[in-house]
Amino acid sequence: MYSGQSGPPRHHHSHGSHASGHRTTVQHHHQHQQPGAPPGADPQVWHWFAAVDTDRSGYITANELQTALINGNGTRFDLDTVKMLMKMFDTDHNGTIGFQEFTGLWKYIADWQQVFLRFDRDRSGSIDGRELTEALRSFGYNLSPPLLTLIEQKYASGPTSGYGPPPGITFDRFVRACVTIKTLTDSFQRFDTDRDGWIQISYEQFLTMILSTP
Amino acid sequence: MYSGQSGPPRHHHSHGSHASGHRTTVQHHHQHQQPGAPPGADPQVWHWFAAVDTDRSGYITANELQTALINGNGTRFDLDTVKMLMKMFDTDHNGTIGFQEFTGLWKYIADWQQVFLRFDRDRSGSIDGRELTEALRSFGYNLSPPLLTLIEQKYASGPTSGYGPPPGITFDRFVRACVTIKTLTDSFQRFDTDRDGWIQISYEQFLTMILSTP
Repeated sequence: MYSGQSGPPRHHHSHGSHASGHRTTVQHHHQHQQPGAPPGADPQVWHWFAAVDTDRSGYITANELQTALINGNGTRFDLDTVKMLMKMFDTDHNGTIGFQEFTGLWKYIADWQQVFLRFDRDRSGSIDGRELTEALRSFGYNLSPPLLTLIEQKYASGPTSGYGPPPGITFDRFVRACVTIKTLTDSFQRFDTDRDGWIQISYEQFLTMILSTP
Repeated sequence: MYSGQSGPPRHHHSHGSHASGHRTTVQHHHQHQQPGAPPGADPQVWHWFAAVDTDRSGYITANELQTALINGNGTRFDLDTVKMLMKMFDTDHNGTIGFQEFTGLWKYIADWQQVFLRFDRDRSGSIDGRELTEALRSFGYNLSPPLLTLIEQKYASGPTSGYGPPPGITFDRFVRACVTIKTLTDSFQRFDTDRDGWIQISYEQFLTMILSTP
């Protein structure tokens, strides 16, 4: 059964400070201070924004974001994760991320990094099946072993069959997995008005619920 | 409502010949003939296999496949598409693709290329919303305009909000979209035993259906 009350980082809370960024996932292009920061802007966040905005347009595109964001093992974020982040933080729906929007995105990624580091107990840089189970349980999702195996296989950074240890889940895919489980659980609960763990849905509703997830 | 009877390429039919490969999506590393082809092997398919198997281990890994497969616009296939293909064609479940398995994979991709070229009417190299609608209708899926918009947004190769034309769907994401719609429709139909377009499912069944899709 589901509960999912405590949960992973949310993206609507205020942002006074941001987490200190060891093992950051943003690539560092420019060391010198960028001019043109808005009044009151956090200098550190402005610095990163300017580094990601490589064409200095004042807006970050999906391409710029995908180039800038890398996992601990050096791989880029999947396009689907980048699109998920753009959709969450492009609050004016202009298809790009402005500086104010970037402030929220930055905080969100920093918060997820803390979560990832907390559950990557063996410091391998990826989340294995056991670590995934602990993370989802801590968020309030009490999922069956077969479901946990499915999640591990779907979000692993390679095939989980074959010889050797399974590849584990990189940072960006871990975030997408958690957001997807939360989104699907919330959707299910909206239909499950009598809270008995069963819903009746049409083909249209079924596809809509799934296609609305990252 | 759904029907989905005609459908996109299947991956279990026999393979005598393979489609002629203009606009192929496999990168070409070696021009010279490779030795060691199994007796009776199609020389063209063996040639491609050897080109993808860059460490000459006799087996193609997910990494080798992702490096070799590129879309018409030069982007790599998403990891999720590569994993989907590996899962389909790694019939002995050893985590890699041998030559016999590659023969099926090669034919499958060539068949999808024909489908993609047929529906990419404006030869843009990507599938737009109208082309997607025609493709899915031709496969027998009669989906509502809101669902088609959701599919277009989810599988587009960038955010669909903002200025300018939407980015469209690249080859690998088009294949993944079609396979996903087929998989979900088949799953739904298995539950919809009285064929009225409604199903009753538990939270566990709901998540299992979704996490089993590519």
